[in-house]
Amino acid sequence: MTDSAPSLAAAVLSGSRRALARALTWVENEHPDSAALLSTLYPHGGRAWVVGITGAPGTGKSSLVTALALRLRQQGETVAILAVDPTSPFTGGAILGDRIRMRDLSGDSGVFIRSMATRGSLGGLIRVLDAAGFDRVLVETVGAGQSEVDIARAAQTTVVVEAPGLGDDVQAIKAGILEIADVLAVNKADRAGAENTVRALRAMLELGHPTQRNRMVNHHGQRMSAEAPTQDDHEAELWVPPLVRTVATREATPENDGIGDLLDAIDRHRAHLTHADGDKLRQRQRGRIEGELLDRLSHALMARLLAALPAGTLEAAIDDVQSRQRSPHHAVQSLLDSAGKAAQPNGV
Amino acid sequence: MTDSAPSLAAAVLSGSRRALARALTWVENEHPDSAALLSTLYPHGGRAWVVGITGAPGTGKSSLVTALALRLRQQGETVAILAVDPTSPFTGGAILGDRIRMRDLSGDSGVFIRSMATRGSLGGLIRVLDAAGFDRVLVETVGAGQSEVDIARAAQTTVVVEAPGLGDDVQAIKAGILEIADVLAVNKADRAGAENTVRALRAMLELGHPTQRNRMVNHHGQRMSAEAPTQDDHEAELWVPPLVRTVATREATPENDGIGDLLDAIDRHRAHLTHADGDKLRQRQRGRIEGELLDRLSHALMARLLAALPAGTLEAAIDDVQSRQRSPHHAVQSLLDSAGKAAQPNGV
Repeated sequence: MTDSAPSLAAAVLSGSRRALARALTWVENEHPDSAALLSTLYPHGGRAWVVGITGAPGTGKSSLVTALALRLRQQGETVAILAVDPTSPFTGGAILGDRIRMRDLSGDSGVFIRSMATRGSLGGLIRVLDAAGFDRVLVETVGAGQSEVDIARAAQTTVVVEAPGLGDDVQAIKAGILEIADVLAVNKADRAGAENTVRALRAMLELGHPTQRNRMVNHHGQRMSAEAPTQDDHEAELWVPPLVRTVATREATPENDGIGDLLDAIDRHRAHLTHADGDKLRQRQRGRIEGELLDRLSHALMARLLAALPAGTLEAAIDDVQSRQRSPHHAVQSLLDSAGKAAQPNGV
Repeated sequence: MTDSAPSLAAAVLSGSRRALARALTWVENEHPDSAALLSTLYPHGGRAWVVGITGAPGTGKSSLVTALALRLRQQGETVAILAVDPTSPFTGGAILGDRIRMRDLSGDSGVFIRSMATRGSLGGLIRVLDAAGFDRVLVETVGAGQSEVDIARAAQTTVVVEAPGLGDDVQAIKAGILEIADVLAVNKADRAGAENTVRALRAMLELGHPTQRNRMVNHHGQRMSAEAPTQDDHEAELWVPPLVRTVATREATPENDGIGDLLDAIDRHRAHLTHADGDKLRQRQRGRIEGELLDRLSHALMARLLAALPAGTLEAAIDDVQSRQRSPHHAVQSLLDSAGKAAQPNGV
């Protein structure tokens, strides 16, 4: 069967899981009609709460995601899981324990699990799942490099997972990760060394989130060359990431697994964002949309330009700048000219 | 006297300090001919070693810069100082002690001091000073927000300055700053609490720069979705920022002020970069140039597009996306169309 974008979108919106899987494949493989599909689905989105869950390999974040999904299902919420981490059991490399846990989720039509090999299409996949009507979209990513920035952009609440007992080799608490955390989870909190991890995170949190008075002092120093801090800034920054201890193993019970605390922290963050003055929330959303539109415009313009450049032109320009035969300014002017001339004959 | 770009450039290259000051003003004020000036000067640059010195207000980085400049002068090197920090005494707000120290530098034709109000033209100012023939360009910036990223891009060696005894309010060791440090200086090392600061920095350094074996384990986890780490990556990452203690006060002597250690650390970093296999260095430089050219191209294209857009078009597109009447993809297509149509009649 060959789908058209409108018919596939209609099937996704009617709740077909097969259509959903196919739609996600379109987006992931950049099917020629995927842009049309995403555009058709777009008006139906905006309801799901997107939670990013990120952490180093070995922190047990897949188990945490599974446990979180089970708890959400018990509350009657529908859940989509998107695993971007190539080491995640969801993407294939499951060890036995994980397979057993995942079986807890399979066969439940209120849960949909999808893995992706690369993070390029993350935003599009989330939008498809959002339009398909899931209450929550849980996005699991390995916390490293660019992916943590991507997840912080795509997710409304970002949970950073740390764990003790992996040995200090793997367990590098990356400073950059802390800066994107809305919620911090110390998983495997029943293991030796958990309190050390909690202490280290708390110390880093205090450095990153000084008390209100201190923050204003810092603002003064840091913002000298920018505008003075506004009331809005202060209120927006009042969220300090809560730190929760979790034990996402099959043996743990709802009384001691901390999953309730984690969900509670996520929901408090959601309330913090959505119960803020509506106008402020709207402004924040507009800023995000403007950023996305400008990013897309810039990509589209650059793609056009690079396609219009005769082969080797960019490399030659780099050579000229490196040998100081041409300034960066002149190199750019000549690249713009080359692209313009190359595009002219075709009337582009 | 009205200068032309070629005559001003010639005067700068002949060593005129007045011409240099005027050229910097052109660049800072975005004089219509500043691009031509920079292009004329560009072939004469590439010799200076650019050292960024960044840290929170109160860490004493201005005194450190002064002490470093004096030491370099004693070695016979010429020095340009560029202060971007609005709290720096170089930019005006000097307290008495700083004025006295600065007097040590004034009247020496081998030193040139310039402050700038904003960081927008940083790259251009550095290029002018480079072309003017200084052996070293020291760039002082307040370590916060975007400016630390800018300095890390513009400088060849970045020194991050911390200090004890300011109270924990101002003295937040920003995690992001550590990631750009090639050299760490704990200034005011004679004060109480200095060892605590050194210990905290060392702990953060160890988290950020695990030992070689550990790094490879991390690489494995972090790079799963990207290409495998190359030999090149491993060698390039072998630099671990040295931590030096400095006491940049008038009372300190060359024997105990640590300035020699700081200079030594900077020069070891320089040797690390330049004595690497020439081909590797060349590749790194090409990457930097390519990044700059693509950035400039993107800016030029976006500026053209935004200028061509009828007033209110972007705001209307954001409205449509926010109300989900239009997908981001469609909004971008229509913005590109609007800009194209608006540009057509004028033949742009």
